[in-house]
Amino acid sequence: MNNVVIENIVRADKAVTDAFASFGVATVHEAQGRRGLLASCMRPIYPGAHIAGSAVTVSIPPADNWMIHVAVEQCQDGDILVVAPTSPSDAGYFGELLASSLLFRGVRGLVIDAGCRDIRALEELGFPVWSKAVCAQGTVKETLGSVNVPVVCAGALINPGDIIIADDDGVVVVRRDEAEEVLQKTRAREEKENQTRARLKAGELGLDIYDMRDKLRNKGLKYRS
Amino acid sequence: MNNVVIENIVRADKAVTDAFASFGVATVHEAQGRRGLLASCMRPIYPGAHIAGSAVTVSIPPADNWMIHVAVEQCQDGDILVVAPTSPSDAGYFGELLASSLLFRGVRGLVIDAGCRDIRALEELGFPVWSKAVCAQGTVKETLGSVNVPVVCAGALINPGDIIIADDDGVVVVRRDEAEEVLQKTRAREEKENQTRARLKAGELGLDIYDMRDKLRNKGLKYRS
Amino acid sequence: MNNVVIENIVRADKAVTDAFASFGVATVHEAQGRRGLLASCMRPIYPGAHIAGSAVTVSIPPADNWMIHVAVEQCQDGDILVVAPTSPSDAGYFGELLASSLLFRGVRGLVIDAGCRDIRALEELGFPVWSKAVCAQGTVKETLGSVNVPVVCAGALINPGDIIIADDDGVVVVRRDEAEEVLQKTRAREEKENQTRARLKAGELGLDIYDMRDKLRNKGLKYRS
Amino acid sequence: MNNVVIENIVRADKAVTDAFASFGVATVHEAQGRRGLLASCMRPIYPGAHIAGSAVTVSIPPADNWMIHVAVEQCQDGDILVVAPTSPSDAGYFGELLASSLLFRGVRGLVIDAGCRDIRALEELGFPVWSKAVCAQGTVKETLGSVNVPVVCAGALINPGDIIIADDDGVVVVRRDEAEEVLQKTRAREEKENQTRARLKAGELGLDIYDMRDKLRNKGLKYRS
Amino acid sequence: MNNVVIENIVRADKAVTDAFASFGVATVHEAQGRRGLLASCMRPIYPGAHIAGSAVTVSIPPADNWMIHVAVEQCQDGDILVVAPTSPSDAGYFGELLASSLLFRGVRGLVIDAGCRDIRALEELGFPVWSKAVCAQGTVKETLGSVNVPVVCAGALINPGDIIIADDDGVVVVRRDEAEEVLQKTRAREEKENQTRARLKAGELGLDIYDMRDKLRNKGLKYRS
Amino acid sequence: MNNVVIENIVRADKAVTDAFASFGVATVHEAQGRRGLLASCMRPIYPGAHIAGSAVTVSIPPADNWMIHVAVEQCQDGDILVVAPTSPSDAGYFGELLASSLLFRGVRGLVIDAGCRDIRALEELGFPVWSKAVCAQGTVKETLGSVNVPVVCAGALINPGDIIIADDDGVVVVRRDEAEEVLQKTRAREEKENQTRARLKAGELGLDIYDMRDKLRNKGLKYRS
Repeated sequence: MNNVVIENIVRADKAVTDAFASFGVATVHEAQGRRGLLASCMRPIYPGAHIAGSAVTVSIPPADNWMIHVAVEQCQDGDILVVAPTSPSDAGYFGELLASSLLFRGVRGLVIDAGCRDIRALEELGFPVWSKAVCAQGTVKETLGSVNVPVVCAGALINPGDIIIADDDGVVVVRRDEAEEVLQKTRAREEKENQTRARLKAGELGLDIYDMRDKLRNKGLKYRS
Repeated sequence: MNNVVIENIVRADKAVTDAFASFGVATVHEAQGRRGLLASCMRPIYPGAHIAGSAVTVSIPPADNWMIHVAVEQCQDGDILVVAPTSPSDAGYFGELLASSLLFRGVRGLVIDAGCRDIRALEELGFPVWSKAVCAQGTVKETLGSVNVPVVCAGALINPGDIIIADDDGVVVVRRDEAEEVLQKTRAREEKENQTRARLKAGELGLDIYDMRDKLRNKGLKYRS
Repeated sequence: MNNVVIENIVRADKAVTDAFASFGVATVHEAQGRRGLLASCMRPIYPGAHIAGSAVTVSIPPADNWMIHVAVEQCQDGDILVVAPTSPSDAGYFGELLASSLLFRGVRGLVIDAGCRDIRALEELGFPVWSKAVCAQGTVKETLGSVNVPVVCAGALINPGDIIIADDDGVVVVRRDEAEEVLQKTRAREEKENQTRARLKAGELGLDIYDMRDKLRNKGLKYRS
Repeated sequence: MNNVVIENIVRADKAVTDAFASFGVATVHEAQGRRGLLASCMRPIYPGAHIAGSAVTVSIPPADNWMIHVAVEQCQDGDILVVAPTSPSDAGYFGELLASSLLFRGVRGLVIDAGCRDIRALEELGFPVWSKAVCAQGTVKETLGSVNVPVVCAGALINPGDIIIADDDGVVVVRRDEAEEVLQKTRAREEKENQTRARLKAGELGLDIYDMRDKLRNKGLKYRS
Repeated sequence: MNNVVIENIVRADKAVTDAFASFGVATVHEAQGRRGLLASCMRPIYPGAHIAGSAVTVSIPPADNWMIHVAVEQCQDGDILVVAPTSPSDAGYFGELLASSLLFRGVRGLVIDAGCRDIRALEELGFPVWSKAVCAQGTVKETLGSVNVPVVCAGALINPGDIIIADDDGVVVVRRDEAEEVLQKTRAREEKENQTRARLKAGELGLDIYDMRDKLRNKGLKYRS
Repeated sequence: MNNVVIENIVRADKAVTDAFASFGVATVHEAQGRRGLLASCMRPIYPGAHIAGSAVTVSIPPADNWMIHVAVEQCQDGDILVVAPTSPSDAGYFGELLASSLLFRGVRGLVIDAGCRDIRALEELGFPVWSKAVCAQGTVKETLGSVNVPVVCAGALINPGDIIIADDDGVVVVRRDEAEEVLQKTRAREEKENQTRARLKAGELGLDIYDMRDKLRNKGLKYRS
């Protein structure tokens, strides 16, 4: 399935997608059984952004950003663009002009397993990007790729319409058909963590809260002075 | 000496330890003969933190943070937790909940040769971390390690009770039994640098201040137009 | 041409050099035919700096910063110091004291394919550095190198007197004898991008602005639902 | 779908699978439209091995090889074991003992996005491994994973029953349901390359064989002396 | 303890040291509780070497090999030279001439957390080296270091007189005062592995030999078709 | 000077060029003052090759090998092809077919700051390659570059007609107009090393041969037991 653009993909319920923006990437990742995390080389170009949205995916050649122009037209309000080169590249596929175009359509950010440029302008625009490099190197527009096909981005499989959550810790993907279940588990985990946090702040030890002392002793842990 | 927790370690004099917080990592490193620096991959998760404290060390399996929970109980006011996996790992061993627990006990920060998560929350809490990665990936609690044994962390040997100084330039360790001597040398170096700085700001050249011109000529340096 | 200091190098017209500071690194790099970019490992030690200046180059041994002291004397108002080790090094060649000396002479910043230290002080001084590492590790003063000879810095050839432009996206070099021509092309590109930006912000698609649809179809791109 | 072993997976026709062993990884990768290549960090532990087989996949925790023991039982003659950690690890998950067990069952080799050990013994046994590291570091047996679920291994999606081809150039995956079509395309490409090779060896130029001169001129290539 | 040469270090019993050469690095590492392994970037410059010997350690500046010349005089029959720069370096500290000198004294090999050159000549001489790089870059002879002090080499603490074992899997260190105990444990492990190997070759499964099935079921592993 | 092919470049005297093949890369690099070495990531695809030749240079886009086909026509007997992408790429630009074409013309090998494939076939053909990656990933033929312009390859400036020497230690470049002088210095160094080697093999110490003891003492080296 090369050189194809899939139009009118199915997205998750918007309310469900939006609700994920209240939760950290680490919490969602834990809640769904420690799955779906992108590699830790994916860093935000500026601190403080925290978004959730529906993935529009782009499979793209190395150092060629033509298909991003094609993908823009497929984006709508609430989407996050996800770009994965077919072989490794740090080139600067994306900058201020493409961001202006995506912002008009309501796109919330970009996740790209490659480089990004114009990062000061992007911060001023308020368009967050998670990338593995900041690089001014331009790209060509010569070779096709595909839009809205499944891609492997920074080590994680992402399908069009999956939910992406990104914050200062990184990026996680939630399968579209598991979205509601994962949201519930995320809320439950957050609530539980709130309770634990209160106890830890009051000075209780994790050793006691999680009841670890016996298990540690049985494994053979010794204390000495 | 595996799977052991050493309690009641000896720490350096608190006044000496605290005094190091006034000096940069580079200055301390120079003052003690360019020893004790951790690898430059150890970066702060947010800029501006500058701490000194007494090391509580953790030797820990890859992608398993159980022993950090054990270590919390061994920490006291003025400590810095130092965590070194027994094989390389970028996983997110540490986040907001553990930080809340350490803050209650007066711990000043974390140095970890692995990953850290919840970095926005950690900045809001004012709990600084020096790590080699930011990574939301969770860890298990299955395998023992040791607390307060000597560890190699980011290429440097750290004993429990050694003094750790960390700032935007990185992390340096000072041996407990050399602390006072190194503090004196650090103060002397700082004072000397203050004098040099004043002369450089006034336009004198290092070539003249350090009397380098003859040595350069003798080594064979040539000037041409 | 080892162990030599070339004095009184020819610099580009100051007005031309200064004019480049209004344009981003990505724009200049594009305008001169995608040439002259330094490797993307060269990152600013703090965000927001944007400078242009005339290169004073230093070819320097690994972990030895003696020649930087020699180079300071060759610098004048409007210069940027460019330092390239003869074999790879992350050591901290440069810190606050050298910056104080360079600031007195009107130097605008440092580009170094190695490490830098005292980064908080450098930010407070307003002396920007682009480096591949932040590292407190000190260097020796034992071995000669050369000043104002052509160097390869982070993969790019830089001659003394070439123009350096650096911002949050990285660093680009413009040949001295091409400076006016590249400046004109940069201005033209900037103007064209301003027009495109306005159209993109108004919702026009790159697909239409750049007239891509036919070319994509001819290459074989297919649309499906 | 965590912590599950899928038994009795569907494999491709054995004759088709075996036929791929006659073709290089580069040829297969080209024949299927430049898809399916694993990252180039996957290197053979000794030169000269060239295998094709049916993938048995293992999703496994970092530094924990328990699930490989589980996977052995699911392997049969003609299989290749594919192991992907859920977070990055260079630990030595695999050595001579596991190889002995797999050899008994007719397994042809291992592809692991982590470390491997006992490499001299593995070469003597004739059991080839493609890994991203050679590392003696042992692993634990504490945490579950899954066998025969889709995995992302070294950046490529691999389903159980897909065909793996590996040689000195690296590793490529062919989807099970595309196997016959890709085999035909591979044979066609090989035949065409044989013809081209003969012409190139006889001194004809690729410029002429592929009829590139006009296209180059039209793109603007200039010749000068 | 800078710039010092410790003479007449205590070495382990030669028979004990030599006995380790019969066992692989992975086996020794396991037998002593998974401790003492050097980082996996330490690779042999040619395959097939397998040595054990007594460590003579060198703490050395980056890109300066003067202290290796000093260390040669401290070496005797059965030693292995261990070299650790005080800051990271890939330079080629070591080549054929130094190897000739060490061979005369009966030194068995070199472990260096830096670069090595003349690798074809070294293979012809039969002088094995484990290094993190092959690099022809020369080094200077300007700055002192120390011989026979504790060093951190590739992430592992090595004391003079400790036993080094190195093979195609990497390098491991055994403490001098634990040598006999570790040797016994290594022999025991080897014997046990021989028995297991025989059973695995005969087709028994690790699942059964190690009695894993109940433990897996209790942890929650599910089988499905 | 983009998109241009320079024909009929000037090469060094063939006898001089050929004479360099008798000397190791490390020796030549030392003899010319430790200049001209390519980065140590440039490794031979098989051990044992040792060549010298005249550089034909190619500046080439990332993941696009069109210009290599153009360059073949510019090659003649005794040349070495040198390929440098304009932005980093590990793609497999080069394989058996291009090697067949170059072998017909008497080209001695390839130096490429990118990936190479078909490495088993290349070894069988006896066509050596120094590259930074082995990678089966194919490249496109869409974008122009230049042939026989100065390039930066793996950190070293290489002009067309410069002399390249490559062996198991890496790759070094000698300027065409310095070739005879460097050859003489190389021969002198080799002769001196032969004498030193004989003395070292007979048991003399470098400390004495190079008369280092006084200099070490003056620098402050201490001996202790």
